[in-house]
Amino acid sequence: MAAAGKATRPPIKVAVLGGSGYIGGEALRLLLGHPYVQVGAVTSAAHAGQPVTSIHPHLNKLTELTFVADVEPEEAGEYDAIFLALPHGGAMQHVPTMLTAAQSGGPQGNGPILIDLSGDFRIKDAALFQRYYGLEHSAPQLASAAAYGLTEWNREAIKEARLVASPGCFPTGALLALTPLARAGLLDGPVIVDSKTGSSGSGKEPGEGTHHPTRANDFRAYGLFTHRHQPEIAQELAKWLPAQKAAPTVTFTPHSAPMVRGIFTTAYAFPERKVSAGELRDIYEEAYATEFFVRLVDAPRVAVVAHSNFCDLSVATDGEGTIIATSAIDNLVKGGAGQAVQNLNVVFGWPETLGLTFPGTMP
Amino acid sequence: MAAAGKATRPPIKVAVLGGSGYIGGEALRLLLGHPYVQVGAVTSAAHAGQPVTSIHPHLNKLTELTFVADVEPEEAGEYDAIFLALPHGGAMQHVPTMLTAAQSGGPQGNGPILIDLSGDFRIKDAALFQRYYGLEHSAPQLASAAAYGLTEWNREAIKEARLVASPGCFPTGALLALTPLARAGLLDGPVIVDSKTGSSGSGKEPGEGTHHPTRANDFRAYGLFTHRHQPEIAQELAKWLPAQKAAPTVTFTPHSAPMVRGIFTTAYAFPERKVSAGELRDIYEEAYATEFFVRLVDAPRVAVVAHSNFCDLSVATDGEGTIIATSAIDNLVKGGAGQAVQNLNVVFGWPETLGLTFPGTMP
Amino acid sequence: MAAAGKATRPPIKVAVLGGSGYIGGEALRLLLGHPYVQVGAVTSAAHAGQPVTSIHPHLNKLTELTFVADVEPEEAGEYDAIFLALPHGGAMQHVPTMLTAAQSGGPQGNGPILIDLSGDFRIKDAALFQRYYGLEHSAPQLASAAAYGLTEWNREAIKEARLVASPGCFPTGALLALTPLARAGLLDGPVIVDSKTGSSGSGKEPGEGTHHPTRANDFRAYGLFTHRHQPEIAQELAKWLPAQKAAPTVTFTPHSAPMVRGIFTTAYAFPERKVSAGELRDIYEEAYATEFFVRLVDAPRVAVVAHSNFCDLSVATDGEGTIIATSAIDNLVKGGAGQAVQNLNVVFGWPETLGLTFPGTMP
Amino acid sequence: MAAAGKATRPPIKVAVLGGSGYIGGEALRLLLGHPYVQVGAVTSAAHAGQPVTSIHPHLNKLTELTFVADVEPEEAGEYDAIFLALPHGGAMQHVPTMLTAAQSGGPQGNGPILIDLSGDFRIKDAALFQRYYGLEHSAPQLASAAAYGLTEWNREAIKEARLVASPGCFPTGALLALTPLARAGLLDGPVIVDSKTGSSGSGKEPGEGTHHPTRANDFRAYGLFTHRHQPEIAQELAKWLPAQKAAPTVTFTPHSAPMVRGIFTTAYAFPERKVSAGELRDIYEEAYATEFFVRLVDAPRVAVVAHSNFCDLSVATDGEGTIIATSAIDNLVKGGAGQAVQNLNVVFGWPETLGLTFPGTMP
Repeated sequence: MAAAGKATRPPIKVAVLGGSGYIGGEALRLLLGHPYVQVGAVTSAAHAGQPVTSIHPHLNKLTELTFVADVEPEEAGEYDAIFLALPHGGAMQHVPTMLTAAQSGGPQGNGPILIDLSGDFRIKDAALFQRYYGLEHSAPQLASAAAYGLTEWNREAIKEARLVASPGCFPTGALLALTPLARAGLLDGPVIVDSKTGSSGSGKEPGEGTHHPTRANDFRAYGLFTHRHQPEIAQELAKWLPAQKAAPTVTFTPHSAPMVRGIFTTAYAFPERKVSAGELRDIYEEAYATEFFVRLVDAPRVAVVAHSNFCDLSVATDGEGTIIATSAIDNLVKGGAGQAVQNLNVVFGWPETLGLTFPGTMP
Repeated sequence: MAAAGKATRPPIKVAVLGGSGYIGGEALRLLLGHPYVQVGAVTSAAHAGQPVTSIHPHLNKLTELTFVADVEPEEAGEYDAIFLALPHGGAMQHVPTMLTAAQSGGPQGNGPILIDLSGDFRIKDAALFQRYYGLEHSAPQLASAAAYGLTEWNREAIKEARLVASPGCFPTGALLALTPLARAGLLDGPVIVDSKTGSSGSGKEPGEGTHHPTRANDFRAYGLFTHRHQPEIAQELAKWLPAQKAAPTVTFTPHSAPMVRGIFTTAYAFPERKVSAGELRDIYEEAYATEFFVRLVDAPRVAVVAHSNFCDLSVATDGEGTIIATSAIDNLVKGGAGQAVQNLNVVFGWPETLGLTFPGTMP
Repeated sequence: MAAAGKATRPPIKVAVLGGSGYIGGEALRLLLGHPYVQVGAVTSAAHAGQPVTSIHPHLNKLTELTFVADVEPEEAGEYDAIFLALPHGGAMQHVPTMLTAAQSGGPQGNGPILIDLSGDFRIKDAALFQRYYGLEHSAPQLASAAAYGLTEWNREAIKEARLVASPGCFPTGALLALTPLARAGLLDGPVIVDSKTGSSGSGKEPGEGTHHPTRANDFRAYGLFTHRHQPEIAQELAKWLPAQKAAPTVTFTPHSAPMVRGIFTTAYAFPERKVSAGELRDIYEEAYATEFFVRLVDAPRVAVVAHSNFCDLSVATDGEGTIIATSAIDNLVKGGAGQAVQNLNVVFGWPETLGLTFPGTMP
Repeated sequence: MAAAGKATRPPIKVAVLGGSGYIGGEALRLLLGHPYVQVGAVTSAAHAGQPVTSIHPHLNKLTELTFVADVEPEEAGEYDAIFLALPHGGAMQHVPTMLTAAQSGGPQGNGPILIDLSGDFRIKDAALFQRYYGLEHSAPQLASAAAYGLTEWNREAIKEARLVASPGCFPTGALLALTPLARAGLLDGPVIVDSKTGSSGSGKEPGEGTHHPTRANDFRAYGLFTHRHQPEIAQELAKWLPAQKAAPTVTFTPHSAPMVRGIFTTAYAFPERKVSAGELRDIYEEAYATEFFVRLVDAPRVAVVAHSNFCDLSVATDGEGTIIATSAIDNLVKGGAGQAVQNLNVVFGWPETLGLTFPGTMP
């Protein structure tokens, strides 16, 4: 018995580079269920020749694909879109040649859309990239040109992009929570982003930090003042600051929580001007009134958004100058592969929710 | 922005009775995503008048429905199918009058299909029902007439049914694991079903057994020799025994595991005739060759099937007369609402996988 | 075979009031293992007449005690110390009459030491107490007189106390992290206490927030700007501020993490004066040099301190005016019953670590 | 401030070989808290020269020891007891030379007691050892001579032993559950041991099976018919069978449960003779009447025994020939280091509970 329910429209052809990890696996899972997409290739250097389901057993019966070692630049034109889920540093090797070599595929027929899920093209400042990623950037001009893929706040640029830099998981939660404040000129004091992530954010490779016996009942902070998502958050917030405002110091503290999926962000701002709860609510409602995937709620919860592309948001104030904005996302979906598919939909001019309307699976 | 991707076919209209619990919520979630279904009503006596999303916040943006107190028998004909997710004893109050009163709706236009997710119509023997459920059955003839909704093994009867008794979560895992052995005459010794369930099987109401501080790191057995799923397993296995074989004693031991979703079943059989691993494999491959939702694998895992309608199965033997069949399902999907939707598809003659092809979400 | 290892010294006699909850149970567990203590009575209105082990099965073989309904004021003198683990509002009913009625017991023979584990005597300002606890205080003068039981910072007052108000779990973690900064005059900007707690902090009664199916994979904030531990933290920090400094605004945000034991606190300070990492380290090393239960470490982890009376602490700065102090404790031990026993040791002049030197149980 | 509460008796000196793993760490933790023991050396080839607390941070403040590379055979006599927590195959290299070389230390002054926590000396049949462990045994005569360290059932032999082979974690739970049935002649049908373990049983090295993202919500079986604890269980049960009874086939199925600590065992027996629940209870009460660490309870739970040396046990029957015995232990304590310390107490003639009377830490 075959799976049913796919649309009859001729699908676009998509490749996933680096398909054996968690983000690549999620991209694959979502693309397999997307009504307008056919997955043409999934790469894995380590697992070339093996069935995709040997690494992603949950996809058994849903795909017969076998990992291939790589998609060569000259083959790139066979695809309309290419998702890159390679380790940091991998995308910057592939992207320039693919952009040059491919003359077919894609929405305009002049080459595939590249959607990069790594950190390679997120940071516009090459020196900052090198400092935080420990790598010299080999294509800094492409980093500058790439559209930052936070769909809700960069939709127009994404529509026109050949290269989309999908945001990091922490920045997605932080920026959806804080951008309305930045636009409203309310980030003129210290800004704190205190985030808590599930273990899937550490990826597929077992390590000390994700060893079940010590992770399961643990909680800890890490990367104080040094995490590479800090400059990404600061860069994107700065875009929205009123002209006269200096960029705030953004302190970002990630924590390891003993769950698998999800990021919860508690963001604090101390604007010079006191705002009321009512004004804050108006700011957020105006910001997200037409957004399907952002839901303003009383109290965001990771369990409510897990496995979905939704971001639940809340904002509160004591009325004395302290604002707390909280958000919950699934780190691999809205904070990863789901948002990448959302961007695919934007680039191809499809309804933005296509293939992404599944809710979380609470409990 | 509205959700996209629904088919343009005129949908059938479905009601969910008892929609505030976990099984009702899962039915609602799956039906909202089903391309041929429109959910017309969701009932909850306790929450009538409240938005469905006040209880199921993960469905926020996906439904505007409000709970209604009940669907009256005379209204039943407005629906093509009614899912009953009421507490045990509730369905037997609703079903007889609905079947009598409704003259419209349903695939033949003579009344809706009733798909009951409770235990009310699973046990054919009224005395046995009373012993295990502590209730006198008010419609024993309907229990006899209801089609037992284990789709893979009762598809023909389900096709013709007005009333489908969806299986219990434990029996689904146990019967998919053991029915091939029953048919092959290999259940002529003691049969043990040792099952391990996640906490969502206990439902939405907080209680001692699902209190996080003591459940999270706990493991325990319960209901030894007395669980109500034992007679259900025994009844359904007995259907398949070769004529000359006596019904085996089935010992069923459920356990509480510290996970949320899933049931893992380890079933042991000691047939008089020794069978080889190869013969066993052939028996299972023949049994499930054309089944989409049953996957024969090396080692079933709950994490692989969680949130999906798949059942992963394995069988092994020491060659000395001991057979171990193991299975993994999601208790709320294949062991609950997913299988109910699968039956809906069967009754309406649609592809059986419609609305159910989503994989698990590993990790 | 009997348990071995108790000292031969004549023990003091202790009663535990409210011994059926988690904090009472932990107090009982620790007192049963204390070499100089004999537990004379454990009360529970709901479980009077039942063996203590019917509620605390882990204590089976370690005590033969049966719950009694109450210890009457006139009986208080039979005990040298009384631990009160009653719901908020309960201690203030018992304490005044016990202090008046009891003329014997205790280290001076003039009445037992009362160690209260509730919030009744922590807040010195009766109006503030009423605002946060929703109760009028019936013995405000005793709240003023009670020694606040944060042992490391109030040891001298505890030594002389008849009534010790054991700190709340969140304040313990927050105050151990922040008091050195307060003393150093570094809390003159906004202060944020972002805390993450395990589910055992919610107590023994099952409820929505501790229902395993939704707690196990969840993360959420609660009580923004309104939690009753906020005034407790602010009150105790204010004691240490240099004379000329105004009390800072302390923002306290508790979160529910999907673990059972432990509190992780991330505290942020923005002093006017920039301090170096080296100066900060000196401040903390000086503060805790002689403290057994406070360990300065690189990165505190809940798993390392769980089930122990230790508090692991760390402090960091970006050198640009932001300080982050993090701490990890077990909420029921250092944040509850363990610290209460530590105070018992102080009051009786015993080595402070007596009965408390067990480490955590990692993994 | 120093830790208090140690006895004033001159302690024996103990070394722990292989002290960086979980079992070695637990042995160290328990020995540090033992009133008659001084830990003299802890070895780790990989971590020689590092403080023990760099690997076991929970022991910070409780020991100043530094790992040494090894204890040479000629140094063995400096210790009264040596715990070997080496990988399988390691103990058999050390033990023979240590037994020969050491002429001092130990209870009789003729060499230290060796307590081996690996599988090296558990299996008496060298061929069976080789088959299950994949190693040729280099000291099979010592395996024959070693006392099997299941204290409750082998106390007399342990008292006289120079070498104690501490049982495996699964066998401890299985044998405490089944030995009373073996002695009563009730294991003359198939015997099934269905066990569920926490992740700490897999040890300290991260791997696929203990990777938090997939372990946390998973459940699976492994090692069907091939696990090395099967022959250990069968060997020890066979000791107790009535003379005329043939050894039963013992089927052992381990499962990975998503918890950290603990093993729950569900054991099934089908004796030829039907026994009543009352007779069964008598059999177990007689077996364990004087045992401190074995508690007969209604329903064993892992959470109740976790972090303790207790084994909670229950037995039930349908009265029709099926018996279910269930047990719960902590795999690292009663199933590992705790039982090893219990054996130390036996060998040295101390109260058997010394240093082991701490209860579990529920919640």
